Amino acid sequence: MNERFIKQMKFLCEIDRLKEELRQNYICSGNRRENDAEHMWHIAVMSMILEEYAPEDVDIHRVTRMLLIHDLIEIYAGDTYCYDTEGNKGKFQREMDSAKRLFALLPEDQEKEYMDLWLEFEHCQTKESIFANTMDRIQPSMLNLASDGKSWLEHGIARSQVLERNKIVLENDGPFGEFLRSVCDKAVEEGYLKP
Amino acid sequence: MNERFIKQMKFLCEIDRLKEELRQNYICSGNRRENDAEHMWHIAVMSMILEEYAPEDVDIHRVTRMLLIHDLIEIYAGDTYCYDTEGNKGKFQREMDSAKRLFALLPEDQEKEYMDLWLEFEHCQTKESIFANTMDRIQPSMLNLASDGKSWLEHGIARSQVLERNKIVLENDGPFGEFLRSVCDKAVEEGYLKP
Repeated sequence: MNERFIKQMKFLCEIDRLKEELRQNYICSGNRRENDAEHMWHIAVMSMILEEYAPEDVDIHRVTRMLLIHDLIEIYAGDTYCYDTEGNKGKFQREMDSAKRLFALLPEDQEKEYMDLWLEFEHCQTKESIFANTMDRIQPSMLNLASDGKSWLEHGIARSQVLERNKIVLENDGPFGEFLRSVCDKAVEEGYLKP
Repeated sequence: MNERFIKQMKFLCEIDRLKEELRQNYICSGNRRENDAEHMWHIAVMSMILEEYAPEDVDIHRVTRMLLIHDLIEIYAGDTYCYDTEGNKGKFQREMDSAKRLFALLPEDQEKEYMDLWLEFEHCQTKESIFANTMDRIQPSMLNLASDGKSWLEHGIARSQVLERNKIVLENDGPFGEFLRSVCDKAVEEGYLKP
């Protein structure tokens, strides 16, 4: 087997660790926290099912690819809870260091390709990355509502924090803003979010 | 929100259950079994990283989409271990019943689209489904080797069973046949597979 293929297989083995990197959200049943691998799968499928709400000329293949790798960088950086103000200081640098270390396992052309794909997601300027970020934002609200607000309650989150964090969803065309608002209304009603 | 969007979101909530559907394989660390959601994510990423080994005119987007949904049908049918001869009798019918029930949650056009995509994977006749099945076959061997043959040892699997099960990989062009043979050699050497 050639060296290139061996490098690629080692990378694919290394990213298996994301199956043990836990996020703050619970899965819908509320039985346990969700891990990064599951999260990336879930929102990649969301991008397929909800493709029709993306702007007409979006490269949906690129969106799906982006979602499948966007949290790989947590492999050495760990998950930072989005409402953790202290933890979010220095987050980008931690994740950049992790990205450099991880993508260096790949052949050089792919190292650049995947770094670019991740950075595109992070900078959230292209149509593809805006749609991808929208998927990434609405899924936790869906999980929170289904799991009786478990992670919101653990952290004492307020409606205004969710809306502030998800500005990009509210600005977006399509049904996502309305969805998010209705989730928040329901969550306040049920006592899962502070009013 | 319109009825179509609500149906799609309910479907996306329902498939969250795949995060609790366990397979026989262990994750690389050997700490616990892998679940279907993680498995689908892992091989979808594999299809991205190893795309260059697919036949030139393969629609790789279709491959990735197929991999992201190929095990959804286990949601009500459960996982059937590939070396379980008894369990594999009636497997297709169980999975078809499950597929009908699950995809019926989607709007009618998507119900048909996803049923077709799953059946294409199952029948394994197109270039896309052959490449997708190849990803699905080599990943468990990779996990088994990394986790010291844990699931092979639990079930007393022999080298010949792995090679027979993975005929499609051995017939395939590209480095996958060689990879699989080398994994089996190493696994026999280490005592993870019966010779």
